[in-house]
Amino acid sequence: MNRIKIPIILVNFKTYAEATGKNAVRLSKTAEEVSQETGVNISVAPQLADLKSVCDTVSIPVFAQHIDPILPGSSTGHVLLESVKEAGAIGTLINHSERRLKLSAIEAIITRTRDANMISVVCTNNAAVSEATAALKPDIVSLEPPELIGTGIPVSKSRPEVVTETVALVRHVNPCVVTLCGAGITKGEDVAAALKLGTKGVLVASGIVKAKDPRKVFMEFAEAVLSTE
Amino acid sequence: MNRIKIPIILVNFKTYAEATGKNAVRLSKTAEEVSQETGVNISVAPQLADLKSVCDTVSIPVFAQHIDPILPGSSTGHVLLESVKEAGAIGTLINHSERRLKLSAIEAIITRTRDANMISVVCTNNAAVSEATAALKPDIVSLEPPELIGTGIPVSKSRPEVVTETVALVRHVNPCVVTLCGAGITKGEDVAAALKLGTKGVLVASGIVKAKDPRKVFMEFAEAVLSTE
Amino acid sequence: MNRIKIPIILVNFKTYAEATGKNAVRLSKTAEEVSQETGVNISVAPQLADLKSVCDTVSIPVFAQHIDPILPGSSTGHVLLESVKEAGAIGTLINHSERRLKLSAIEAIITRTRDANMISVVCTNNAAVSEATAALKPDIVSLEPPELIGTGIPVSKSRPEVVTETVALVRHVNPCVVTLCGAGITKGEDVAAALKLGTKGVLVASGIVKAKDPRKVFMEFAEAVLSTE
Amino acid sequence: MNRIKIPIILVNFKTYAEATGKNAVRLSKTAEEVSQETGVNISVAPQLADLKSVCDTVSIPVFAQHIDPILPGSSTGHVLLESVKEAGAIGTLINHSERRLKLSAIEAIITRTRDANMISVVCTNNAAVSEATAALKPDIVSLEPPELIGTGIPVSKSRPEVVTETVALVRHVNPCVVTLCGAGITKGEDVAAALKLGTKGVLVASGIVKAKDPRKVFMEFAEAVLSTE
Repeated sequence: MNRIKIPIILVNFKTYAEATGKNAVRLSKTAEEVSQETGVNISVAPQLADLKSVCDTVSIPVFAQHIDPILPGSSTGHVLLESVKEAGAIGTLINHSERRLKLSAIEAIITRTRDANMISVVCTNNAAVSEATAALKPDIVSLEPPELIGTGIPVSKSRPEVVTETVALVRHVNPCVVTLCGAGITKGEDVAAALKLGTKGVLVASGIVKAKDPRKVFMEFAEAVLSTE
Repeated sequence: MNRIKIPIILVNFKTYAEATGKNAVRLSKTAEEVSQETGVNISVAPQLADLKSVCDTVSIPVFAQHIDPILPGSSTGHVLLESVKEAGAIGTLINHSERRLKLSAIEAIITRTRDANMISVVCTNNAAVSEATAALKPDIVSLEPPELIGTGIPVSKSRPEVVTETVALVRHVNPCVVTLCGAGITKGEDVAAALKLGTKGVLVASGIVKAKDPRKVFMEFAEAVLSTE
Repeated sequence: MNRIKIPIILVNFKTYAEATGKNAVRLSKTAEEVSQETGVNISVAPQLADLKSVCDTVSIPVFAQHIDPILPGSSTGHVLLESVKEAGAIGTLINHSERRLKLSAIEAIITRTRDANMISVVCTNNAAVSEATAALKPDIVSLEPPELIGTGIPVSKSRPEVVTETVALVRHVNPCVVTLCGAGITKGEDVAAALKLGTKGVLVASGIVKAKDPRKVFMEFAEAVLSTE
Repeated sequence: MNRIKIPIILVNFKTYAEATGKNAVRLSKTAEEVSQETGVNISVAPQLADLKSVCDTVSIPVFAQHIDPILPGSSTGHVLLESVKEAGAIGTLINHSERRLKLSAIEAIITRTRDANMISVVCTNNAAVSEATAALKPDIVSLEPPELIGTGIPVSKSRPEVVTETVALVRHVNPCVVTLCGAGITKGEDVAAALKLGTKGVLVASGIVKAKDPRKVFMEFAEAVLSTE
């Protein structure tokens, strides 16, 4: 996993109005500015229809939010790896809690991303699922207890033992797999807590996208990363 | 339905390699050229990651291949109407045989497109489903018997009675709904046959995308349209 | 639709513990007793694993909660019409809000039930979907606004205009299709209100299954039916 | 895994007409007779609507074909663990290739079966997925390459290296997890080959259900098991 710099702050734009279309490009620029100022890796995952605009505008790493386990062909309305790669994405989220996938599909997508030299970020809901996922050799496992998503209750502070267990299990199965955590991350101290628990960064959405001043929150997150190094 | 010119030749790019990324833009330009030369409405439905590039390049109508029945918010990996509209799409395919949807989702998506002044093209698999769909008041119903898709056996010639029945049922339920047909359309005579059966055009994919010379097939289709007027 | 006596009180056992296994058989017996005492048609829809026990025990009509659009063959873990018919079910719920189906599946299942001389009860979420469903010629359409299910706020009293509109639309599309309504039905007056709005009965679940004294509620419902005749 | 006797011949009845209703009971009796005559563990997985009849008739282990990751409550048309347990099933198939599940659902179902002291048999499509599944600590992993199902080309003879790799990976992750294999098993020698590769039995469907003389095939399979001990 030397294809991406860690620690990483990965921002999922979901389908928020504040991160759709022109707003997606603007928010990505803010991410890029803070990343360049601080040297911290900030990456973004915009919607598919915004992927190319964002990739054409910024130089930070851009991820898709989802791809399907398909090859080029007859799959109307599905997401082809080649389409997001040509648009400029360097990787993709897989199995987000809002887009859960079948086990066989997760395995197939991880294999496809590996063959295409793209980065796979598989979201998981607990320690056991994280351990199983690690066996599939993705680049990154991101633990996100679904019940905390969007709550402002940070997983890194409310469930530290689950994060610690996940980090240990993933490392045991495959030391090359990086662990992130997400859900409820809104403050710099949540990011710092996540790193202290052994993760290599956070997956965040509303904490940035819905913030009154996203730049300020980006800075706070980046400083938290720098302070723990 | 005076928001789109009929008859229409609507090309579904699916996830074909020949219609992904740069290829999608090039094929769309060919469609535009033939449309401008002949005056026949040719529209395209590229993949999501290519939607904005295509919309930014050509002036013919561009459709999404799918949208989800969601509002802006927390729907990672799903397709938001607002994202495809801002990218430049004027409408969307719904319920393609490769992306079948729940009945309640189809109704919700049609309502969303209507509220957003976008054009809804609902794909159906037989006459009964077409009749039910027409009751939901989409702009367009496109009959595509799944067993004929990609076969080169044109629905308009092998199943004329199903097309005729569909046109009649849809018209009876709601005279404002336009009927197209698709599946197996590869020649100008297939297009002419479709129009003679009462449809207002065709939904085509491999017949164009996989053709050795797409421009030639586009011309043949356009001439078939002109010859039946 | 002279295969089933109307008005009908149709009880969906869902997967409630109070209506699983032996409890399902006992609740069905109570339904049968009240039905025999009052002459009102009370029918039950237990879980699949309880279907045969219930059918073997009571003589009232028994419905499945779901079947899949499949033919006999290789469909592990799916529900075959022939299996529920041989177990003794006379019909099936289709497209319940907790088990929404694709439009093409709904049409295929209705066709299968018709061919097997079984009764199809398609659940719908609003008037537009009910109208579309009626075009597919099921025996029964049951309107259940999902936001009211399990609330105790009866659709027949809180949304009378939606019920009236649904009854009118369904009748207009196909006068042979019977309309029921459900969601929030807990009292006799809710049943009476439903019948006065033009429905031919109710689909009820927690109102009966979760009642302290289901027999008492059954009696109240039956008397409401008798009082409106 | 001392809750079930190994080696095991586990017969999936799918939704075959030959194994529906009365036929399911009859085939289960044949399985029981051969099991009693030979002392080999033969278990059956009938459809849900037949589960109780089969459990009431035979004393061999009976499995469900699928359960859903739900608790008692509002899940119309879904399969509740408690319902199949009360009907007499001692375990369930999970994630069959014809009923693939989300990773999070597989984990939740395994946990539910463990808490209920039921046996979990998770089907997998390749070695990598089997390894990941083993990390979830089911009782049994059953490798079934989907492309061989129903072909008569036995996985144990055409893909011995995949079977061997799966057995090794599963054992490495968790020595308590038993590995079976399936797909294309029609002869005693296929069963013997499976056991020699390190599996503890086979998951079979059409090889038994579609056989002209299922008793004869059962005997052949049982003798193959005995010959390898």
